[in-house]
Amino acid sequence: MTAGTFTHLDDRGRARMVDVGGKQATLREARASARIRLGEKAFGLVFGGELPKGDVLAVSRVAGIMAAKKVADLIPLCHPLPLHAVEVTFEPDSGSWSVRVVATVRTKGVTGVEMEAMTAVSIAALAFYDMCKAVEKGIVIESIELEYKSGGKSGVWQRQPAGE
Amino acid sequence: MTAGTFTHLDDRGRARMVDVGGKQATLREARASARIRLGEKAFGLVFGGELPKGDVLAVSRVAGIMAAKKVADLIPLCHPLPLHAVEVTFEPDSGSWSVRVVATVRTKGVTGVEMEAMTAVSIAALAFYDMCKAVEKGIVIESIELEYKSGGKSGVWQRQPAGE
Amino acid sequence: MTAGTFTHLDDRGRARMVDVGGKQATLREARASARIRLGEKAFGLVFGGELPKGDVLAVSRVAGIMAAKKVADLIPLCHPLPLHAVEVTFEPDSGSWSVRVVATVRTKGVTGVEMEAMTAVSIAALAFYDMCKAVEKGIVIESIELEYKSGGKSGVWQRQPAGE
Amino acid sequence: MTAGTFTHLDDRGRARMVDVGGKQATLREARASARIRLGEKAFGLVFGGELPKGDVLAVSRVAGIMAAKKVADLIPLCHPLPLHAVEVTFEPDSGSWSVRVVATVRTKGVTGVEMEAMTAVSIAALAFYDMCKAVEKGIVIESIELEYKSGGKSGVWQRQPAGE
Amino acid sequence: MTAGTFTHLDDRGRARMVDVGGKQATLREARASARIRLGEKAFGLVFGGELPKGDVLAVSRVAGIMAAKKVADLIPLCHPLPLHAVEVTFEPDSGSWSVRVVATVRTKGVTGVEMEAMTAVSIAALAFYDMCKAVEKGIVIESIELEYKSGGKSGVWQRQPAGE
Amino acid sequence: MTAGTFTHLDDRGRARMVDVGGKQATLREARASARIRLGEKAFGLVFGGELPKGDVLAVSRVAGIMAAKKVADLIPLCHPLPLHAVEVTFEPDSGSWSVRVVATVRTKGVTGVEMEAMTAVSIAALAFYDMCKAVEKGIVIESIELEYKSGGKSGVWQRQPAGE
Repeated sequence: MTAGTFTHLDDRGRARMVDVGGKQATLREARASARIRLGEKAFGLVFGGELPKGDVLAVSRVAGIMAAKKVADLIPLCHPLPLHAVEVTFEPDSGSWSVRVVATVRTKGVTGVEMEAMTAVSIAALAFYDMCKAVEKGIVIESIELEYKSGGKSGVWQRQPAGE
Repeated sequence: MTAGTFTHLDDRGRARMVDVGGKQATLREARASARIRLGEKAFGLVFGGELPKGDVLAVSRVAGIMAAKKVADLIPLCHPLPLHAVEVTFEPDSGSWSVRVVATVRTKGVTGVEMEAMTAVSIAALAFYDMCKAVEKGIVIESIELEYKSGGKSGVWQRQPAGE
Repeated sequence: MTAGTFTHLDDRGRARMVDVGGKQATLREARASARIRLGEKAFGLVFGGELPKGDVLAVSRVAGIMAAKKVADLIPLCHPLPLHAVEVTFEPDSGSWSVRVVATVRTKGVTGVEMEAMTAVSIAALAFYDMCKAVEKGIVIESIELEYKSGGKSGVWQRQPAGE
Repeated sequence: MTAGTFTHLDDRGRARMVDVGGKQATLREARASARIRLGEKAFGLVFGGELPKGDVLAVSRVAGIMAAKKVADLIPLCHPLPLHAVEVTFEPDSGSWSVRVVATVRTKGVTGVEMEAMTAVSIAALAFYDMCKAVEKGIVIESIELEYKSGGKSGVWQRQPAGE
Repeated sequence: MTAGTFTHLDDRGRARMVDVGGKQATLREARASARIRLGEKAFGLVFGGELPKGDVLAVSRVAGIMAAKKVADLIPLCHPLPLHAVEVTFEPDSGSWSVRVVATVRTKGVTGVEMEAMTAVSIAALAFYDMCKAVEKGIVIESIELEYKSGGKSGVWQRQPAGE
Repeated sequence: MTAGTFTHLDDRGRARMVDVGGKQATLREARASARIRLGEKAFGLVFGGELPKGDVLAVSRVAGIMAAKKVADLIPLCHPLPLHAVEVTFEPDSGSWSVRVVATVRTKGVTGVEMEAMTAVSIAALAFYDMCKAVEKGIVIESIELEYKSGGKSGVWQRQPAGE
């Protein structure tokens, strides 16, 4: 068990962008999610139905999609890669006054798109938080996590339920 | 209770960058945190002490600091603003094989720096995740939340304990 | 009449970012507009009323607001400057199957915000075009122009009607 | 006639980056143009011939070329894609004191490069405007439009003369 | 002599964006230079006088000016700050087939603009190199150095001649 | 010998992004270096061994790696291209109180990666300078140069020793 187990570090612990030159370009997909605990007041304002919730969802969705395209600029050791598809959706849960953000990213490339999906949900959630923070400061973004991943040498990976 | 309660939306629910022209430039500070549940293996590799953990913390810290400077580019309705100080620290907890990321941001300006602190911990955590994901795919980023905020008309706000 | 009349060029015709160090920081506002000639089919799809026009307006609005914040990065000789407010609105005209985009930008600074308003309408119009181009390739973006400007030494400027 | 006719929207009107995974990578070209109505004074200064027009054309050209590379960052639902060639030229017309900007973009990819050509002429025109606005505030950017497009399933498209 | 002597590191050697909250906003200026050793062939092509040297100088100048505006995005611990003026000039020396690049940057702010001037000459030189590298691969960029700095607590600093 | 010898200029001296559409995608590698003359005091602080040199090397390395990914955004006529690997290393020389920065970049593409390697060492060196400038203003970055290049039609190129 050496530092080299971290592929992003060389054998002396120094950061590098790992060489993916020998890897096959394959179809790859990743899905990630996050949960935003809005609290009663902010949840009511966004999803209450009596008001025009206006652009809240659209703005957050755009923020997430655009963030997926900025991953190489945000995460220091990530490879720049083309993206074939990005989708961001929101699932409100009135029982817990929370909303689940899900991002799905697909491409054909030599590295996976986990970071694109993870970053998309994170920034979509932060943009959502930004629009609600004047109403409720205690909002928490929870459980940013990979749900599913396919493509590449390691094949399909699926998060076990029971999760969190 | 109207859509206008969301200051980022006008009275017809349309997104806008809200006018801060009438606000005073005051000293402002915000502190946010996140927790990364690494699991035993990744935690041991990073914090085990027998190995050079090398650049993992430094790379994540730099990612967080740089992200604080990109907020206006990432969060659609945020105002661009100067930053006077950004600090990102990591607190490992061997009991839960997790690490807490804390970011503190200060400036003198017409809007607060919550989003800068929230974004800094989010991207620092994502960069950390990126370096560990080859070792452990199940890592979860939890509880991205504002801890403290001062400055501006609303004064000091502090998260209540018991929290997360 | 010398090349120096262009403040962005020195007396030998070389580009520079002109020195604004001696200028006063004053409240400044600029309003610009553009017209998108959609044609009957695309206009009907976006504004027809029978369908969810969904995110078309919201996505274009966000694109325009974010572009206002990127001006220093897009226009080589523009000064970076803070922005206090950005608004982007759309006015459909069913008679001409066109939509007018209007952007209003305000700040307190040492240079005006014309370029921010002009860039906001341009990119909002391009994003709108992007979403409609699969339906109609012949869409034209017309008459990107400054409407109004205030603040700074030159005071208020207003476009004459009849214009073009 | 459903919202789905807009490929950038799903069947519920939500924005997405449409999946291009099934499309062929083919040679693609797009040409777009814009016209800048400078007025007599600014036209004379730039193209009068007695003075060094210096860097005005070069700065605008560089702005346009660089903007073509930023399209994925500016237009929310555009796919990032490599570019094989970008050219930006200017055609002055002393009769109308105007200049036509033309951008040609080529690549081999799974989506077209219309947006790259359209954005290149728009930003080149805005940079041109920026350098001339101290001399003449009434300058108008007109008729940003696609001229020609080839490659991909839809083949060659050419704007009809008589145009607009 | 402790690590804290590096203001960018805290007392445990961790990177941070140092707090400039207590510093005065003063007028600040910095001038930096670099030398590009082109060799006979490339020098002759650019400065030979018989040919249109075209856009080489203008493109390099624009690259340098735009880079000054990107410093906060390139240099991890730099503070974002407004710029009042940026100039980039070139001084060819036919004796050594080399060209000296000089950048001058001015602002009023709480930190100096050394990094803006140093980055402007570096990127201007790299853009120059990029345009000449097909003609001569052996080009070397030499002596990127601060020439002069004023403003702030430390006052005026001037490089001693004889230098390097 | 015409202006066209500069492939980045057309036959009238106008800048363009040269068409690489006809070139083969091959494995390409480039290695560049720079030398930072720190002087005794700054060298001692960073490499003295008695103190935690902390994040200085890691921060500079990250800055260099991230800069390699920004080349298309910094160098006006460069093509955007994917990168397969980026490494940045530092070689201190206590005899001259200097440190050599070396960057190696690899990809499979239609253009070379010289600019990526040259830009990586330049920005890594500037970030290093930034952290040391409070201690020593006279630091000079010397000899930014290509060391080695392979791939593409021109094959292997190696800098001759005996310096330049």
